[in-house]
Amino acid sequence: MSSKQNRTRVTSHDVAALAGVSQSAVSRAFTLGSSISDEKRERILEAARKLSYVPNSIASSLITRRSKTIAIILGNIDNPFYILVLKAFIEKLQESGRQVFTFTVDPKSSADDAIMRVLGYQVDGIVLTSAQISTRTTSLCLDRGIPIILFNRYIPGSDASVVRCDNVGGGRLLAEAFIKARAKRFAIVKGDPMGTTSQDRVQGFTERLLEAGIARSAIQEIEGNSVYDDACKAVLQAYADGAAPLPDAIFGVNDIMAMGAIDAIRHRLGARIPEDVMIGGFDDIPEGRRAPYELTTIRQPIDEMVDETLKILDVAAEEGRVQADRHHLAPTRLIWRKTIRRPT
Amino acid sequence: MSSKQNRTRVTSHDVAALAGVSQSAVSRAFTLGSSISDEKRERILEAARKLSYVPNSIASSLITRRSKTIAIILGNIDNPFYILVLKAFIEKLQESGRQVFTFTVDPKSSADDAIMRVLGYQVDGIVLTSAQISTRTTSLCLDRGIPIILFNRYIPGSDASVVRCDNVGGGRLLAEAFIKARAKRFAIVKGDPMGTTSQDRVQGFTERLLEAGIARSAIQEIEGNSVYDDACKAVLQAYADGAAPLPDAIFGVNDIMAMGAIDAIRHRLGARIPEDVMIGGFDDIPEGRRAPYELTTIRQPIDEMVDETLKILDVAAEEGRVQADRHHLAPTRLIWRKTIRRPT
Repeated sequence: MSSKQNRTRVTSHDVAALAGVSQSAVSRAFTLGSSISDEKRERILEAARKLSYVPNSIASSLITRRSKTIAIILGNIDNPFYILVLKAFIEKLQESGRQVFTFTVDPKSSADDAIMRVLGYQVDGIVLTSAQISTRTTSLCLDRGIPIILFNRYIPGSDASVVRCDNVGGGRLLAEAFIKARAKRFAIVKGDPMGTTSQDRVQGFTERLLEAGIARSAIQEIEGNSVYDDACKAVLQAYADGAAPLPDAIFGVNDIMAMGAIDAIRHRLGARIPEDVMIGGFDDIPEGRRAPYELTTIRQPIDEMVDETLKILDVAAEEGRVQADRHHLAPTRLIWRKTIRRPT
Repeated sequence: MSSKQNRTRVTSHDVAALAGVSQSAVSRAFTLGSSISDEKRERILEAARKLSYVPNSIASSLITRRSKTIAIILGNIDNPFYILVLKAFIEKLQESGRQVFTFTVDPKSSADDAIMRVLGYQVDGIVLTSAQISTRTTSLCLDRGIPIILFNRYIPGSDASVVRCDNVGGGRLLAEAFIKARAKRFAIVKGDPMGTTSQDRVQGFTERLLEAGIARSAIQEIEGNSVYDDACKAVLQAYADGAAPLPDAIFGVNDIMAMGAIDAIRHRLGARIPEDVMIGGFDDIPEGRRAPYELTTIRQPIDEMVDETLKILDVAAEEGRVQADRHHLAPTRLIWRKTIRRPT
């Protein structure tokens, strides 16, 4: 048992004295990216280790009003795409000496409660993915000078900044690939019906099919709830035991649902891909590249999108102001693999 | 553009006055699990919304010395097992009104630097998975009254608490399943060589084989680096083009490596599973249950392990002391699916 937490606290003055430097040098030594020589920094860290000193970032945040903390609110951690996003944010923010608060919320509920709690921690910014937020809460953040960025979605009427890919355009690209492969009957496995991401992809896909003269009655919509298991079950329910004839082409509105559709079609319904049924996804997650899937899909440029988000956060941090309603739209592209027949 | 962050700050006094309650009631209304009627709480939240008030958790943490924040340091976010762990921690900590700081570190490097930075934020506890930490840093945390818990690993000589499953026992269970299925030649796809998790699983597996009279020369070890891609490549390199005859049985030291081995054996080397080669995993992640894998594996009881971790954190929070070197060992069990022939 150890119970020494009431010992007198070592301060940056003690470290400065032992290392023979100024107190501001100690502060710089603990701030990533600040100007200090490697030699001096090492000497200060050695003194800090000897004294068991650690900087008090919270007290410092009360003075500077910068906590160097970004909150990331995730609505659907079951979709590996958002794990890639989380990983990219953690790595890039850590590189620049910032911390990440991670919250998860039910994708169908509002993130307002989580944000109210986040605000209690004086974060420098909030990134929200696959969850809802009210315009009232958005205003509350912006009024306090805290940038809030919707990642891979937008909310009509909201003042929050948005970084997303061209979901409508991506949906159109996939529809075109199916049309060129002479598909006539289609299914769409849809995600969260409240989310603009799924809505936009479905819209782009459907628009392009209609433009090509496909009848709306030849396009079946299935609810996949943005996750593998539900997509797999929904496809089985729609087509098992001859409930309906198999479509020529299935659009999984994200890769993890497309993977659920592939497993249902191939392993449970015994049909061949792409000979009997073609399948296309959206996101380009590494799981979809593996041998059992080799999924033809639309790539979202995650790195570009994360970098654009960080730019918005940096402007807010440097200029002490929030640019409301910034909107970055990243391009998408089709990645050919083996689940759609390629025109020869 | 919005730039109103310098407006006078609304305090809990203002909210109390508008709601007609005491200031301490306002504080209770914003503390999950504290005693206050739903009606009063709703009235206070309504007043807070009207005034755009949010509580300042950081200032409050300086007074109570409790930040209600737990830091989770993850070494390998590419293994879905740790995403399940992260998800379980976030959900359970949020339920009890606590926040999660998420850090990632290179699994092969030390988490000491990350922990030094974490300490600057007055966290109430640190959970470390799949990463190294020095005994010096551990002592630093314990001396400050901050519990540090190694999740799914231990570090010999360390005072940190440990919550893990019986990795040696799990390795033995899998070896037994292979022996009963009459396997004679074995391969082990190993994880991080510095990590006790992989070491213990390999040890239990190998011990049990040797006890059954298998020669050490019949057990080949392959480096899979704890991730899918490296495991897949390592298996190909070991067995492609007749480099060596295929083994009867492969132990993937975690499920994601076993999945890499399955894809290499079935899709690249054209052998049947389990007829030609049997494969067993460890962890029981949902991905391994899917149709292309149906992986026979050892289940880790994540919920039990997360609950035990929270108990250690709760004791520290309630009693204001850290119990050093607590050790919880959770049992494992074999989950039969389709990658090992079952004795009839």
